[in-house]
Amino acid sequence: MSTETASTPVPVGKLLKADSIASIYRADVETSIKAFTSSPSYSRKPRLVGILATDSKPSEMYAEFTRKTCEDIGVEFALKRVGSAVKKEQGGAEELGSDGEGVELAIIEANEDASVDGIMVYYPIFGGLQDHYLQQVVSPYKDVEGLNTKFHFNLYHNATAPANSDIPPEGTIKSILPCTPLAIVKCLEFMGVYNTLLPYGDRAYGKTVTVINRSEVVGRPLAALLANDGARAFSVDIDSIQEYTKRPASSTPSGPRRMYHPRHVAHPSSNTLEQCLAISDVVISAVPSASYKVNTAALKDGCICVNVSSEKNFEKDVREKASLYLPSVGKVTIMMLLRNL
Amino acid sequence: MSTETASTPVPVGKLLKADSIASIYRADVETSIKAFTSSPSYSRKPRLVGILATDSKPSEMYAEFTRKTCEDIGVEFALKRVGSAVKKEQGGAEELGSDGEGVELAIIEANEDASVDGIMVYYPIFGGLQDHYLQQVVSPYKDVEGLNTKFHFNLYHNATAPANSDIPPEGTIKSILPCTPLAIVKCLEFMGVYNTLLPYGDRAYGKTVTVINRSEVVGRPLAALLANDGARAFSVDIDSIQEYTKRPASSTPSGPRRMYHPRHVAHPSSNTLEQCLAISDVVISAVPSASYKVNTAALKDGCICVNVSSEKNFEKDVREKASLYLPSVGKVTIMMLLRNL
Repeated sequence: MSTETASTPVPVGKLLKADSIASIYRADVETSIKAFTSSPSYSRKPRLVGILATDSKPSEMYAEFTRKTCEDIGVEFALKRVGSAVKKEQGGAEELGSDGEGVELAIIEANEDASVDGIMVYYPIFGGLQDHYLQQVVSPYKDVEGLNTKFHFNLYHNATAPANSDIPPEGTIKSILPCTPLAIVKCLEFMGVYNTLLPYGDRAYGKTVTVINRSEVVGRPLAALLANDGARAFSVDIDSIQEYTKRPASSTPSGPRRMYHPRHVAHPSSNTLEQCLAISDVVISAVPSASYKVNTAALKDGCICVNVSSEKNFEKDVREKASLYLPSVGKVTIMMLLRNL
Repeated sequence: MSTETASTPVPVGKLLKADSIASIYRADVETSIKAFTSSPSYSRKPRLVGILATDSKPSEMYAEFTRKTCEDIGVEFALKRVGSAVKKEQGGAEELGSDGEGVELAIIEANEDASVDGIMVYYPIFGGLQDHYLQQVVSPYKDVEGLNTKFHFNLYHNATAPANSDIPPEGTIKSILPCTPLAIVKCLEFMGVYNTLLPYGDRAYGKTVTVINRSEVVGRPLAALLANDGARAFSVDIDSIQEYTKRPASSTPSGPRRMYHPRHVAHPSSNTLEQCLAISDVVISAVPSASYKVNTAALKDGCICVNVSSEKNFEKDVREKASLYLPSVGKVTIMMLLRNL
């Protein structure tokens, strides 16, 4: 009878915007850019070259968004179009190339051009190993995306500063972290997944995370980063599930002290995706497919969901189960990229 | 061969001190006390009367600790000894009373004394229902511990401001929260269990908590507070386990919107204690027994453990599994008590 006892609808989880997270890092990036611009050895704006080699709509939009962010923040952005990205009005109508035609030469030119400080290539171009080859062609000194194998090697061997620290602890090696995984870690930090009371390199301890899609660019480095930061991470791919962890599987309280490796180990998991989701505090999906959806009913009540794909990997009703939902990290990724610059 | 691949011991979880949490609230309490002291209607220090009615060593120590904190912070503290708490040197040697003798009269005197602003009685005295009766004898206006049934009624009916808010949202009723449960919530907030991105009254959403011991003073109100703040709380007693939650047990994504009660509901759980511990992000134990121990092996790796009992309810090796361990909340409880004053 009274409103005190009446049922009310469960409020849906909170929708987060990447802008609010990106803005935290913006001031820092602006300060660095100002310092570069006014330095006597440069006395010019930092210059980022974007290389667009396909007519893919998402890549075109991402390039446009890079330009806008660069202009806002004081970075000079030049877009180099090659292959099928060459526009008619640029006089390339007759000789319009195929996807990726001329992209390697464009990268080499940018590598050799002393006025270029950073290079960003819009993938996928050829897909698979050929894109991976192109990523190695970009000079590591200009690789703002952090896609060079040597950066991944450092990440997998935990030879970088913790992802959530700006000050590398003594004895660790300064290395660039791949942009997107780093941006995701920054988002998780903002969302309270990292516990600041815990020591650096262990702030995700106690958290279970599922990362869907094990790509070399996002999924695998991300699962490794999270495990290196103390989390229990499930890396889910189309044909296998792996568990990444620094810690031993079980404790023997009466036995000797538990031992662990200084970096994560990956081993096959016998869990199904549903079993992973049921125990995951955080679910991150990066599947480049419009038809793939994470089943809302399988999520743990109150979990945190992050969509990294340009497609919507979560169902419309995801916030019926998720306490926080971040539908995109692109704006944070660009900020990390400019930070690497 | 290299140090890179050598195993290293798993570092133990972090040991927290209640002092560091209490100090956060200290400045606030001091400001309020100064305002009281310099107010024209009082122009004296606030006065707290402690009533000690047994010769129990922990009660004696707690009273001594209350005195020290009061003196430090600018509150006048008077300890009234009755029954078996009367000391020989006070001339009561011959007529030394039994446990609790004279305690009710002492409470009534303090209720009627206009110079007394707060009353704190050191329990247990008689134990059980008789102590509960005494808690109702203390005037609600002087009940700094928040043990009056009317405060518990408000808590169970979620008719208070959220435990983690100093500013009650519009439409909620100002009520004192029981000291110890409130102090525990403040500790959990400090330890990052409450997510500040979520709205008030839902900041523990997504967290699973086990509260061991369902006393009317600590365990039951605490489980209710946590459930009202969005958590899934298991209340474990010697002969039953209950689950407290605001949310429905399961979702039907294709069905109508899930509905929930504006306050928690408690229902029996078929989980064993081991099953509760295996999924709990937070474990709080308040068992007044030196022999009771929470089994470290049953804890979820990386959980947060809080000991509320004056006895050690966790095993020595708890930090082999817990990421954070708080062995006592007493100092935070006193700060909440002075805040209620």
